[in-house]
Amino acid sequence: MEVTQVLHMNGGTGETSYANNSLVQQKAICLTRVMREEAISSLYRSILPKRLAIADLGCSSGPNALFVISEAIKLVEKLCRELKHESPQYQIFMNDLPGNDFNNIFKSLHSFKEKLRSEIAGEHMGPCFFTGVPGSFYGRIFPDKSLHFVHSSYSLQWLSKVPEGLENNKGNIYMASNSPSNVPKAYYEQYKKDFSLFLKCRAEELVEGGRMVLTILGRRSHDPSSKECCYIWQLLTMALKHMVSKGRIKEEEMDSFNIPQYTPSPSEVEIEVEKEGSFSVTSLEISVLPWNAFDSEYGNLSESLRNGGYNVTKCMRAVAEPLLISHFGEAIIEELFALYQQILTETMSKEKTQFVNVTISLIRKPDY
Amino acid sequence: MEVTQVLHMNGGTGETSYANNSLVQQKAICLTRVMREEAISSLYRSILPKRLAIADLGCSSGPNALFVISEAIKLVEKLCRELKHESPQYQIFMNDLPGNDFNNIFKSLHSFKEKLRSEIAGEHMGPCFFTGVPGSFYGRIFPDKSLHFVHSSYSLQWLSKVPEGLENNKGNIYMASNSPSNVPKAYYEQYKKDFSLFLKCRAEELVEGGRMVLTILGRRSHDPSSKECCYIWQLLTMALKHMVSKGRIKEEEMDSFNIPQYTPSPSEVEIEVEKEGSFSVTSLEISVLPWNAFDSEYGNLSESLRNGGYNVTKCMRAVAEPLLISHFGEAIIEELFALYQQILTETMSKEKTQFVNVTISLIRKPDY
Repeated sequence: MEVTQVLHMNGGTGETSYANNSLVQQKAICLTRVMREEAISSLYRSILPKRLAIADLGCSSGPNALFVISEAIKLVEKLCRELKHESPQYQIFMNDLPGNDFNNIFKSLHSFKEKLRSEIAGEHMGPCFFTGVPGSFYGRIFPDKSLHFVHSSYSLQWLSKVPEGLENNKGNIYMASNSPSNVPKAYYEQYKKDFSLFLKCRAEELVEGGRMVLTILGRRSHDPSSKECCYIWQLLTMALKHMVSKGRIKEEEMDSFNIPQYTPSPSEVEIEVEKEGSFSVTSLEISVLPWNAFDSEYGNLSESLRNGGYNVTKCMRAVAEPLLISHFGEAIIEELFALYQQILTETMSKEKTQFVNVTISLIRKPDY
Repeated sequence: MEVTQVLHMNGGTGETSYANNSLVQQKAICLTRVMREEAISSLYRSILPKRLAIADLGCSSGPNALFVISEAIKLVEKLCRELKHESPQYQIFMNDLPGNDFNNIFKSLHSFKEKLRSEIAGEHMGPCFFTGVPGSFYGRIFPDKSLHFVHSSYSLQWLSKVPEGLENNKGNIYMASNSPSNVPKAYYEQYKKDFSLFLKCRAEELVEGGRMVLTILGRRSHDPSSKECCYIWQLLTMALKHMVSKGRIKEEEMDSFNIPQYTPSPSEVEIEVEKEGSFSVTSLEISVLPWNAFDSEYGNLSESLRNGGYNVTKCMRAVAEPLLISHFGEAIIEELFALYQQILTETMSKEKTQFVNVTISLIRKPDY
C-alpha cells in the first residue's frame, strides 16, 4: 500500500465526511492555543516580516483547516496595531496529501475571508494569499527558507508507510500487547526515520528563527503498545476479527493489514529533535481529550450524539475509511463500522477512554 | 450571477469533462510555443534566479494544466546545462477560480513528475514545488514581487462579470450584429476595466524584468460583434431560441442571460497595456485554429470524432455547461446540446469556422 496515495480524510461535506466529523481534532487545536500564540507573537516581534508565510501541514478539509490560520492572522493584526506597524502580506500554504479534498477548502475561502474581515471589523488587514500544497511532508514541499511559521495538528502520528517486517503481527492491525517484540520495534524505527526526515525538510524550508508548533497524537507511557494509544485500534481489530469469523473477510486479508501510525511519547519526540539538531525546543505539553468529543459540556444534544460510540465511530470512519477501503474493498465498510460502533459503545460505557496529545513548540536555530 | 463563483470548466475526467475535451486549447498552447520559449529563455538569462516562480493563470484541469509547466522546466534545465549553472528551485503556481477541479490536477502530479524526470533522463533537475492558487486573477492573488513568469491561455477572454446595462439585448446571449449599439460598448467597457486591473495586479506581483505570455481568444476585425468572434455563441443562441419556441425555456430567462466574455482585437490589447504603463510589449501574434480540433491531420478517427459538430459541441459544453446550468438549471442541458450539435454540424459543413487567438508577450518595466 502506498500510504501517500491512499491516506486521506474522507472528503466532501456529507454524513461521513471529515469536515463533519472532526470535533476531537478541533478541540486539540483549541487546547494548544496558548503555545501557538506565544510562538507567533515572539516570531513576529523578532523578525517583523513584510510577508509572513504560514503553512498548515496535514490541513485536511472542513472547519479545522482554516481555524488556525484565522487565529494566527487575528493575532498578528493585533500585534501590528500595538506596535504601530503596517500589516504584513500573508502567504498561507494549506498542505495535505494529494488525495485530500482541496476543492472543499478552496470553495470555502470566500466566506472564510468575509468572516475574518468582519471579525477584524473596521480595522485594516493585510492581504491574504491562499495556496494549496499537495504532497507528503516527509519530503520537501516548499523552497529553501520560504516559511516563517509551520503548524501541524493530528497529522504527524501518520507514518510515511507501513513499517517493514510486520508479517508475524497476525490477528492484529496495529501494535498490541500480544504483538511479537519485533512489531513495536519496527514501528518505532519507522517513526524515527519519518520524524527526523520531517525535521530535516522543515529546517531547510524555514527561515532562521522560524517557528513550528506540532501536535501529535501520542502517549505518556514508555511502552509503545500500551493501551492508552493502541486501544482504539484494538477495538477495530475486534470488529475485523468478527468479520473474519463470519467469513466476510479472509483471515490472510486481515493479517496483512497494518495501520501506518505511531503515537510517540514526549521523550521520543524530544530525542529526535535533539538528534536532528536544527531546532531547539521552547516548550512541550501533554494534554488529553476524551474519545467522545461531544461530552458533558454540550447541553442539548440529539439522541444519536448522546451516544459516545456513535460519535467516536463517525470520527474514526472519517479518518480511516479510505485506508480500509483500499485494503478490504468498499463492500464490508457499513457492516464493519456498525460492529465497531457496538464495541465502542459497550467499551465506553465501562471505561474512561482518552486520546493523549503531545504538543511541541520549536524554533529554527541559526545556521553556523 | 457571480461569475467568480459560477464560472469553471467541467471538472473530473468523464465524458463531458474539460480534461477530455480541451484539444483546441491545447493546440493554442502549442501554437505559441516559440513566444514562450523566447520569454522564458531571455528571462532566465537576465535574472538567473535561484528560485524560479512560474504561474499559470486560468490553468483549469486535465492535460493542458501542466503542459506549459513541463515545457518551461525542460527549457530552463537545458539552459542551465548550456550555461553550466545549477538548476533553480521551481515554484509552480496553478491558478484558477475556486470552482475549478484542483483535486484532479493534484492527483495527477505524481505521474506528471515521474514523466518529467524520465524526459530529462539521467540529468539532474531542480526540485519542483507545486501549489494551487484559488481566486480570480482580476484581483491580487500573489504577494508583491513574488513571480518571475506568468502564463495564461484561453482565460482572459472571460470577464469578471456580465457587463451592466444589457437589458435591451433581447433575443441574444452575446453581442450580435442586431444587438443595440450600447451592448458592444458595455462589453468593451467591462473588458477595459478588467484587463487593465489584471495588468495592474500582475505588475505588483512580478519582479522587475518578469515576463508574461498571454493568449486571449480574440478577433482581427475592428467590430467587436463581428462574426469571426460571435458566431459560435450565435449558434448557441439559435439552439436556445428553439428551446424557447418549444416552451422548454421561458423567453425572459433567455433574455436575461448573457455570456461574460469579450474577444479583443490586437489593438484593443495593446492600448490597455500602454495605458496601464507597467509593461512593454516584446511581441504580438495572431493565430487561427479551426473550431474542430480533430481536423484533417488526424488520420484514423472514430466515426463520432469525424463529426466536427460533435467535437465542437463537446468542447463548448466542457467550457459553458456550469454557466448554463447556473442560469437555466440542469434539466434542459442534454436537449440544448443535442440541438446545438445539429446546428453546428450543419453550419460547419457549409462554412469555414475558426477561432482567432491574440498572443502577447510582455516584460515588466523597472519601477522608477
